[in-house]
Amino acid sequence: MFGTRGKIYKLVLPTLQSPRELERLSLNELNHLAVEIRDEICRLYDHRSVHFASNLGVVELCIALHTVFDFTWDRLIWDTGHQVYPHKLLTGRFDRFHTTRTKDGLTGFPNPEESEFDLLMTGHAGCSVGTALGLTCGDELIAGKNKRHSVAVIGDGAFSSGVVYEAMNHAGGLKKNLTVVLNDNRMAICPRVGGLSQHLDRLRLHPLYNRFKQKLHTVVDHTPLIGSSVDSFFKHLKGAVKAGFLGGMLFEELGFRYIGPIDGHNIARLQRFLRMARKFEEPILLHVITEKGHGYKPAQDNPTKYHAAGLSGVTPAAKSFTEHVRDSIYRLMKRNDRVCVITAAMCQGNQLEPVRDEFPERFFDVGICESHAVTLAAGLAVAGMLPIIDIYSTFLQRSYDQLFQEASLQNLPMIFAIDRAGLTGPDGPTHHGVFDIAYTRPFPNFSVLAPADAPDITAMFDFAENAGHPVAIRYPKAPATEFPREVQPLEFGKAETVFPGREGIVAVCGPFLDLANEAKKALGKNLDGLGRIDLGIINARFAKPLDTGTLLKPLRQGKFLITVEEGMLSGGFGSAVLEAANEEGLDTRKLKRIGIPDRYVEHGDRLELLDELGFSEREIVRAARKFVFG
Amino acid sequence: MFGTRGKIYKLVLPTLQSPRELERLSLNELNHLAVEIRDEICRLYDHRSVHFASNLGVVELCIALHTVFDFTWDRLIWDTGHQVYPHKLLTGRFDRFHTTRTKDGLTGFPNPEESEFDLLMTGHAGCSVGTALGLTCGDELIAGKNKRHSVAVIGDGAFSSGVVYEAMNHAGGLKKNLTVVLNDNRMAICPRVGGLSQHLDRLRLHPLYNRFKQKLHTVVDHTPLIGSSVDSFFKHLKGAVKAGFLGGMLFEELGFRYIGPIDGHNIARLQRFLRMARKFEEPILLHVITEKGHGYKPAQDNPTKYHAAGLSGVTPAAKSFTEHVRDSIYRLMKRNDRVCVITAAMCQGNQLEPVRDEFPERFFDVGICESHAVTLAAGLAVAGMLPIIDIYSTFLQRSYDQLFQEASLQNLPMIFAIDRAGLTGPDGPTHHGVFDIAYTRPFPNFSVLAPADAPDITAMFDFAENAGHPVAIRYPKAPATEFPREVQPLEFGKAETVFPGREGIVAVCGPFLDLANEAKKALGKNLDGLGRIDLGIINARFAKPLDTGTLLKPLRQGKFLITVEEGMLSGGFGSAVLEAANEEGLDTRKLKRIGIPDRYVEHGDRLELLDELGFSEREIVRAARKFVFG
Repeated sequence: MFGTRGKIYKLVLPTLQSPRELERLSLNELNHLAVEIRDEICRLYDHRSVHFASNLGVVELCIALHTVFDFTWDRLIWDTGHQVYPHKLLTGRFDRFHTTRTKDGLTGFPNPEESEFDLLMTGHAGCSVGTALGLTCGDELIAGKNKRHSVAVIGDGAFSSGVVYEAMNHAGGLKKNLTVVLNDNRMAICPRVGGLSQHLDRLRLHPLYNRFKQKLHTVVDHTPLIGSSVDSFFKHLKGAVKAGFLGGMLFEELGFRYIGPIDGHNIARLQRFLRMARKFEEPILLHVITEKGHGYKPAQDNPTKYHAAGLSGVTPAAKSFTEHVRDSIYRLMKRNDRVCVITAAMCQGNQLEPVRDEFPERFFDVGICESHAVTLAAGLAVAGMLPIIDIYSTFLQRSYDQLFQEASLQNLPMIFAIDRAGLTGPDGPTHHGVFDIAYTRPFPNFSVLAPADAPDITAMFDFAENAGHPVAIRYPKAPATEFPREVQPLEFGKAETVFPGREGIVAVCGPFLDLANEAKKALGKNLDGLGRIDLGIINARFAKPLDTGTLLKPLRQGKFLITVEEGMLSGGFGSAVLEAANEEGLDTRKLKRIGIPDRYVEHGDRLELLDELGFSEREIVRAARKFVFG
Repeated sequence: MFGTRGKIYKLVLPTLQSPRELERLSLNELNHLAVEIRDEICRLYDHRSVHFASNLGVVELCIALHTVFDFTWDRLIWDTGHQVYPHKLLTGRFDRFHTTRTKDGLTGFPNPEESEFDLLMTGHAGCSVGTALGLTCGDELIAGKNKRHSVAVIGDGAFSSGVVYEAMNHAGGLKKNLTVVLNDNRMAICPRVGGLSQHLDRLRLHPLYNRFKQKLHTVVDHTPLIGSSVDSFFKHLKGAVKAGFLGGMLFEELGFRYIGPIDGHNIARLQRFLRMARKFEEPILLHVITEKGHGYKPAQDNPTKYHAAGLSGVTPAAKSFTEHVRDSIYRLMKRNDRVCVITAAMCQGNQLEPVRDEFPERFFDVGICESHAVTLAAGLAVAGMLPIIDIYSTFLQRSYDQLFQEASLQNLPMIFAIDRAGLTGPDGPTHHGVFDIAYTRPFPNFSVLAPADAPDITAMFDFAENAGHPVAIRYPKAPATEFPREVQPLEFGKAETVFPGREGIVAVCGPFLDLANEAKKALGKNLDGLGRIDLGIINARFAKPLDTGTLLKPLRQGKFLITVEEGMLSGGFGSAVLEAANEEGLDTRKLKRIGIPDRYVEHGDRLELLDELGFSEREIVRAARKFVFG
């Protein structure tokens, strides 16, 4: 379907044990290998939700890199890392490739545990340049100058991230031997934004007449300068001519030598310029133009849709938390023209397209710049707007210091819609959002909320609209059902008692009412003659401020209390309950906390992973029975 | 001494109620006002440790800003904010100026609670551009286009911060009405680093022949272009000539119009260009050259020394934690050539000069780029080096996501020397480092240590050298004494029992052995007939992993346990003890936690502030007696 696989050539990919073997292949064979790699990625995409278009875009680049460099010795960092599939196929992981993003299978990102060719786990954008610089500096200190060459491959979306600029600025100053390959496909995960993208678009207009350029360079450099006043004029003119003709001034001004733009789907051309970059003993910015979805027409035409799609036709049982939140954002923006929304290149992931289309002037996509997102929000809030910052839990970590200074310390009205809070499933540990309760809770002035189900979401956004201080609402990547009950109105700092309990209570912080109810039903049966247990259920709603009146009541009455939260046990909601109980001088021996333990959780199906971690009916039943029957 | 105060002119500053009154003053009078402001700042500096050189540098700029704009309407953000003294003097705070940085006095940073002219508390570098952009966007949404003008004033040191680039990129793309004044004094807090600084140095070589430039601009813009092939050539040439002559391509490429450089000590000139910037309806980068310490010779000659000096001659009773840590870093680097050190523009604050001078090739100053510092460290660690990242607690918050992905998730050997952990005294809430235990503890693979005294520091760095995983060592801005005892060797995850206790234990996480000992002595006296209490003392050393064997022993034996930590109670060391006790099923009613409560602590003397928060002999005594006598 997607290539010429098996029709003319003997297949190369399945026999490839090491990228060293690529040396033996002719250019023709390498081009065919590219087809084989695309076939494999399309085959995977047919079976599973995987990052797709970005991987199709870097096939030739990946082949060129592995033929020019020896990455058992040289250093290669794939920024953001979801475009690492061709690299995995070329580095001895063809056999396990079909297991990508399944439990116990290959991860969807670089993983040092899988291969010596993966130096770092790079799920978050922008760190490749800094780590590559660190590798260059470290290699030099250990083995002397120019022993190894470091290459960072970074997309133009990630390139707007502040940490890239910090690293570029530092590398440009140090003048170390380092190649940054800017993989420019004119897309972040969503279409990119900002002045930089316009700069890159201008560069694209200057085709690389390389020989002409080199000549011009030489001519200008050898023009003799006569007299001191003329001197200054010509110096300026020389600089000016170089700048305008050679392009990439932005990078040149930071101390990089700019080369490009180059066709990123032409292996021979890529090899030529990579060899050139390898020779320079200074920081190089190699600007490569690729096409997201290259070689697969539907993905070429709609790369945002195909960023990480797959398995079309499978619709979830219920609307997701993300969609309900989007609806609440829409509702608030419709009725309140002070409300605006900020996303960090996640318009699609946050499903905000309808909001963007209806309220374009109050919709801000800042690109992969989470720190700036919160800073911008602070300015908007001081001006009198109510910004909603809609960002994944794990990426909001980039804003930690802004959550502190711009939100908490200034006590500004802002709403943080913390999406993907909890285990994100197949993306694995770089993407699990398990720290946010622990990292927001210590901030004074913050409210931290977790909806248990769909009606909670609506109520929480209504609350946040008028809260007048920073409000974080965290919810997982999961369907949001509606737990059958008479929903109690949401009040500031109040939990909802869903069922009272004679012997004890399970208090959920997040979408675990169904789970709690299963446990309640099981405990209501007198199966082994020890007796029934009447389990109460509390929907905590607030992790901060805590409804100590309601939540600590069972402990005050000598009943047991079990807390459930999809976040780190260390410093999380259960710890908040412990702290409050301790403040009140209560006995906490009948308190059990269920949450994420002190280790990284691998990738896999969210519910399966949670079950293994004790988010299960049987774990609640076991704990309750132990408290009651000993 | 410093000016002509009171000699010729009638004093203006004391009578100034509002910056609106500056309109009445002639240029001559404004220049004299600058002298008065410098006098006041020098007077303050004579009495107290304050930010100094940076404030002397912006006097004329501040006057020019307040004469050109009306900041009751327009928006002004001072980045980093320690250069806000002239602004405070001009905005109605002359009377209280002498109270700067004292308890209940003026803060050393912009403070919305002090004045409507201070929009945000800006202690951390780099957020001014983003908040100014947010203000512009918000003002436009609320009142329509161009109603107010936003100005961000940012130093060249802060300018290397990634969040600035994110905001510049966004602003350049949006093309909003916004002026960024780049206050270029060629210094961060330490001499600046990186490619950007070299760019700025090149710009300084191009004096602003403004009329000539404008003419050139016009000429080039009106050169007719003939024929399409010639067209392209001339277009390039035009761009090239503009670039080379007009300078600031780096900013122009990001979508800003660059104006400068301008003499930042010439009020009339500043006013002229600020008026020009106000007229443009696009993002402007106004490059102003100032001199740190301007008008005060010793500070001009040594601006690093005078950054925040004052009260020379006062030497602390004991060597500080910072100095002991520096000595340990030196010791490790001397004996182990794999050890290197990274600072983020805090070489002086971290007192690392001797390390820098002896090991220049293993010393990295990345500028005010904390995120990059940790990314760079990850690369160095993968290459086989052992990086020590020496950063203040509050600024390391900028690296939260890198602590997660680059350090904790990759489990790389790195040492975080977390300086200024705890209350920093007169700098106030933007600089207090009270969150770091809570933010590092949930990260798997991390060890979190706090030395109680000087010998602990040495032992902890020896441990960290061979730990093979990320180790955070946090210590306050305070003298490090040596508590008289037979020091027990430091073991991984082990606390030190300093004194056993019959009735209970105080466990300190940090430098509170003396305090605990005072309480011990007081409790050892039978003052009121109720009886003596034999208080034990534990030096916890590790906040993670916790020595549960030692720390929970008193609770297991029905004795009381009091924890003391200079960090947030929410999620801190005491919470870790609570969590561990809960895991073990222990009764926690006899556990009391002393730490920072859920609010921001103002500026003031560290010991005084701590005392008020319950870090006191009497609080420990009170708690112990309550546990024992009820």
